[in-house]
Amino acid sequence: MQRARVKTYSKRDFPVDTVRRFLEPGPIVLISSQYKGETNIMTLGWQTVISFEPSLITCFIWDQNHSYGLIRKSKECVINIPESHLLDTVVSIGNTTGSEIDKFDEFHLTPAKAHSVKAPMIKECYANFECKLFDDKLIKNYSLFVFEIVKAHVATSPKYPKTVHYTGDGVFMISGEHVSRKRNFLPDRL
Amino acid sequence: MQRARVKTYSKRDFPVDTVRRFLEPGPIVLISSQYKGETNIMTLGWQTVISFEPSLITCFIWDQNHSYGLIRKSKECVINIPESHLLDTVVSIGNTTGSEIDKFDEFHLTPAKAHSVKAPMIKECYANFECKLFDDKLIKNYSLFVFEIVKAHVATSPKYPKTVHYTGDGVFMISGEHVSRKRNFLPDRL
Repeated sequence: MQRARVKTYSKRDFPVDTVRRFLEPGPIVLISSQYKGETNIMTLGWQTVISFEPSLITCFIWDQNHSYGLIRKSKECVINIPESHLLDTVVSIGNTTGSEIDKFDEFHLTPAKAHSVKAPMIKECYANFECKLFDDKLIKNYSLFVFEIVKAHVATSPKYPKTVHYTGDGVFMISGEHVSRKRNFLPDRL
Repeated sequence: MQRARVKTYSKRDFPVDTVRRFLEPGPIVLISSQYKGETNIMTLGWQTVISFEPSLITCFIWDQNHSYGLIRKSKECVINIPESHLLDTVVSIGNTTGSEIDKFDEFHLTPAKAHSVKAPMIKECYANFECKLFDDKLIKNYSLFVFEIVKAHVATSPKYPKTVHYTGDGVFMISGEHVSRKRNFLPDRL
């Protein structure tokens, strides 16, 4: 199995009401979870921000994913943002199941202790958002988990990560340049 | 007001169960709507695919948006994908309200007749997805509209559009290169 290229980040606390910077562009994220000592990691592309304060994100997690049970029972997880150098690892995580392997071990990823949840953070990712289940009412009928991001750890550089975005059919879009149009915005519409 | 650069696309019907190619990467979209002869356009970045068959997308539409009423009452809309040359127009659309201006007229956009809905398509956009409200049960408490994409019109080229993705604070990420890892996928996990 291919070893993830080692890249270490220096991280800092980041205001949870502004993590949209990293989530709203729509990257593939890695969800790490833990329940009764068992950990797992899954890939996810079906999520959207729905509130800044509280900092809420809605994630569609299929009940056939092994992580579904761990997250539902523990009521927490970490949303990790991988950069493009981890693309092959991302694909491998999505092509295996935590019911058969330990993904941290298999893919040489380092679990790091979180501040407010028991789920481990993935050290090799650009950012880690500790999440608590905020609302479970949409899980049964829609497979939608509403999480509150309660603590955010973000690399001190670069300012914007080089994220991977899935288009289906095995093809990923890699994030490109960033451009500001701040001068054109009304202040209350940023 | 800046005039949108004119770019015309030749479009074809696209299978609705594969429009994830354009939506899953998380671009800013323009939602066009119509109710009793009044049309409007809004920007949206808070959406996620939740099903392929039927082709469903969940959109967070705030009740303070003028489009909210038009879409809720007409139960339909068109999701349009703008490319980066329309960025200034996208910002302008997000900074104005349809209660005061006609956005098609103001921003020199061309309404095109859709096939299955009365809402107009935006001709200058790369793709147009005709949507019908599939489920209204999450609107009241969550502002989440679940739409079914019933008809898709997509430019014949390029294969992937140059989309704009919002990070907050007036800054947009422009989509970059596309890379395939199809060889690494299990066939049923694409």
